[in-house]
Amino acid sequence: MNNDVVQKLDEFLRIPSISTSPDHAADCRRAALWVRQFLLDAGLPQTTLIEAENRHPLVYAEFTGAPGKPTLLLYGHYDVQPPDPLELWKSPPFEPEIRGNDIFARGACDDKGQTLILMEAIRRTIARDGQLPINVKVLIEGEEEDGGDHLEAYVPAHREALRADAALICDTEMFAPNLPTLCTGLRGGIFGELHVEGAAQDLHSGVYGGAAPNPLEAIAHIIAALKGTDGRIKIPGFYDAVESPAPEELTAWRSLPFNEEEYRQREVGSPELTGEAGFSVLERTWSRPTFEVHGIVGGFVNKGFKTVIPAKAHAKISCRLVPGQDPNVILSALKAAIAQATPRGVTSRFELFGSGPASVVNPNHPILHAAADALAQTFQQPTIYMRSGGSIPVVGLFQRELGIPSVLMGFGLPDDNLHAPNEKFHLPNLHSGIDAVQRFFDTLGNMPE
Amino acid sequence: MNNDVVQKLDEFLRIPSISTSPDHAADCRRAALWVRQFLLDAGLPQTTLIEAENRHPLVYAEFTGAPGKPTLLLYGHYDVQPPDPLELWKSPPFEPEIRGNDIFARGACDDKGQTLILMEAIRRTIARDGQLPINVKVLIEGEEEDGGDHLEAYVPAHREALRADAALICDTEMFAPNLPTLCTGLRGGIFGELHVEGAAQDLHSGVYGGAAPNPLEAIAHIIAALKGTDGRIKIPGFYDAVESPAPEELTAWRSLPFNEEEYRQREVGSPELTGEAGFSVLERTWSRPTFEVHGIVGGFVNKGFKTVIPAKAHAKISCRLVPGQDPNVILSALKAAIAQATPRGVTSRFELFGSGPASVVNPNHPILHAAADALAQTFQQPTIYMRSGGSIPVVGLFQRELGIPSVLMGFGLPDDNLHAPNEKFHLPNLHSGIDAVQRFFDTLGNMPE
Repeated sequence: MNNDVVQKLDEFLRIPSISTSPDHAADCRRAALWVRQFLLDAGLPQTTLIEAENRHPLVYAEFTGAPGKPTLLLYGHYDVQPPDPLELWKSPPFEPEIRGNDIFARGACDDKGQTLILMEAIRRTIARDGQLPINVKVLIEGEEEDGGDHLEAYVPAHREALRADAALICDTEMFAPNLPTLCTGLRGGIFGELHVEGAAQDLHSGVYGGAAPNPLEAIAHIIAALKGTDGRIKIPGFYDAVESPAPEELTAWRSLPFNEEEYRQREVGSPELTGEAGFSVLERTWSRPTFEVHGIVGGFVNKGFKTVIPAKAHAKISCRLVPGQDPNVILSALKAAIAQATPRGVTSRFELFGSGPASVVNPNHPILHAAADALAQTFQQPTIYMRSGGSIPVVGLFQRELGIPSVLMGFGLPDDNLHAPNEKFHLPNLHSGIDAVQRFFDTLGNMPE
Repeated sequence: MNNDVVQKLDEFLRIPSISTSPDHAADCRRAALWVRQFLLDAGLPQTTLIEAENRHPLVYAEFTGAPGKPTLLLYGHYDVQPPDPLELWKSPPFEPEIRGNDIFARGACDDKGQTLILMEAIRRTIARDGQLPINVKVLIEGEEEDGGDHLEAYVPAHREALRADAALICDTEMFAPNLPTLCTGLRGGIFGELHVEGAAQDLHSGVYGGAAPNPLEAIAHIIAALKGTDGRIKIPGFYDAVESPAPEELTAWRSLPFNEEEYRQREVGSPELTGEAGFSVLERTWSRPTFEVHGIVGGFVNKGFKTVIPAKAHAKISCRLVPGQDPNVILSALKAAIAQATPRGVTSRFELFGSGPASVVNPNHPILHAAADALAQTFQQPTIYMRSGGSIPVVGLFQRELGIPSVLMGFGLPDDNLHAPNEKFHLPNLHSGIDAVQRFFDTLGNMPE
């Protein structure tokens, strides 16, 4: 049975469902059909594909045969990040390879492996009992990695059908191997692209250098104006509404098994860590907002040299947001700061791709306690509470539109290389995850009504 | 006959001899062979290909049948810049298209069209007289656009064979259509690439943002530290040795038919011109040094979005140098300034691709006068003297190694889109250029010995 699920994961990982790439739209649909078939085979005959023009399909399934019992909304995503840079992969990103206890492929951890945990837990429980001990609604999407709005349009339009007591999301990580972990906070974000234009066309730097504006240099000046080398973001008002974590939370974080120097050496590998002075690494990555540049495009970038002053340049930019920060307020502040920092001779424009607020979950919610118990039983260790620096916009969506908290039960590991070459998933966590989710179902099914 | 030379140019332009691209090495050789064949057919039976390992061939030819007459060293290059960005070309870069009086193709002006002027002037003069009125040595290279060192090694090793009174180079432009122009100064340059490294591999910006260094941001900070938004270069000592043009030169430049606003609108097309305050556009592009960024590579640059913190980033950078500036001194200053501006958390390194000093020619040399006369006869207008912001390292090489001045007789036009999409050459200038070079040969042949 263990081998069957690994075989299934292998199949799932072979589908290059890169949601941000128009070339892979058919693959995304193929991944959605694969998910639907799995859930049909698992014993949820109502499973359907929800399609919309120019959107990747949603897969929806439900089991409502446990009247009076709690209802969980299970969420996962079948889409993955692009695999670039390809040359750094040790095995091809869409040809899963098992090395030791890990399976290497794009999406292995984020989020096909973890989505499969939810689906396989359903399958095994139905196989064992002929039914589930609670009601479940399953919503698997294909636009998590590209900020698409299919889910965002679907959820508010189906509030009644999606009614549940809580959501269960497996898309986060364990703080350390064998340390059962619940995530109680996620950063939000603003994601977009800065476009800068100078001359009407590319120009020869010998002939025009000294008189023509250079959009690449303009982008450099804008970036340098928005964030200091000290890691402090210089967008006016950026930190105004930032809410600090509760003192107990900070105390708990300080007691986690975490060593900044080890983290630098093992996970980051840079000569030094960077970021705002006066905050620990966990504070900087969990509870402080960021400004990051993810790519700059413009000019001559191939091997060799070309003395060109490019007409245009572009930078992909994000801000991670923390509780208190309103994405619309920060977006306005970002745009104003970009306009302010744009040197003469060029025009600039920020194109928004997507945004969402940060979200925090109350660790004292009874369903969170049930989840913590299930995890603790599986791993035979007390469950710890952490936050994550990443963004899972659906948590905010479920909170806002359905009024439900999300249980973030993650089985990734800190070295799983999410969004990077050689992404992997630790196979023992696939098996433990299925066990923990089954236990969580059972615990909820036994809760006093 | 006129049509024949256009047909020849068409053939020459169809060879994609992009010297900086290893994929086009065979095309470079093909272009060299084409040049050799042309010169053989023109009546120079000694024409040879000079090859060296991992270098693009030189073509050398000579006519020494005019004892007692002056000797000119004719220089041109058959290699071209890469055609990127391809999508901005109205017709394919290596399928020449004549529209109106212009022929559009990569290399049309720089420098295949102008190299052909030299070769066709030889061919016609020999066809007319059975010989040339002066001695010529012809040296056509294939590494002008990529800073290769084949010529730089060849010239010092063949000082005796290359002995001449002056060089004639057609690789510059006329100040305006129908305004016969000699160029008396060129900027030198330093060309290279800045490499910045941070983490050991690409990281997820959600998980690591706030703690991991970002090499793209480091590059932005370095660039912003090296050059202000006011166009002033902030590398310590950068301007120390800059020699100003002579007052008469500045006065002559001010009398040229040049309007900065028209230049902005017609040639640059940006909202404003940029550069150092207190200098005219001609001063800024002819006699002031520059710092330019030609391309930045790093992170995710495709369509869509990827929340990555790249492990590495790179920037292609040049400084144009003017008389007085020593490339080695400036290189050291640039490296020191980069080291100084590199933020913590990353390492940086500047890789030099090539460098050369600026060069100026004395406008009162008798051979320059002969060239000015020939041009004035062809165009029926007095010849003007300008400088050029570009770099033709061979001018410095000939000065240094052979002790000869270079006559820079250019037939490009300011809107020929050198190094840019839709490069063109004005066909009437092809014909006038051949006429002027023939007249120059004749004038030199008639000079008192």
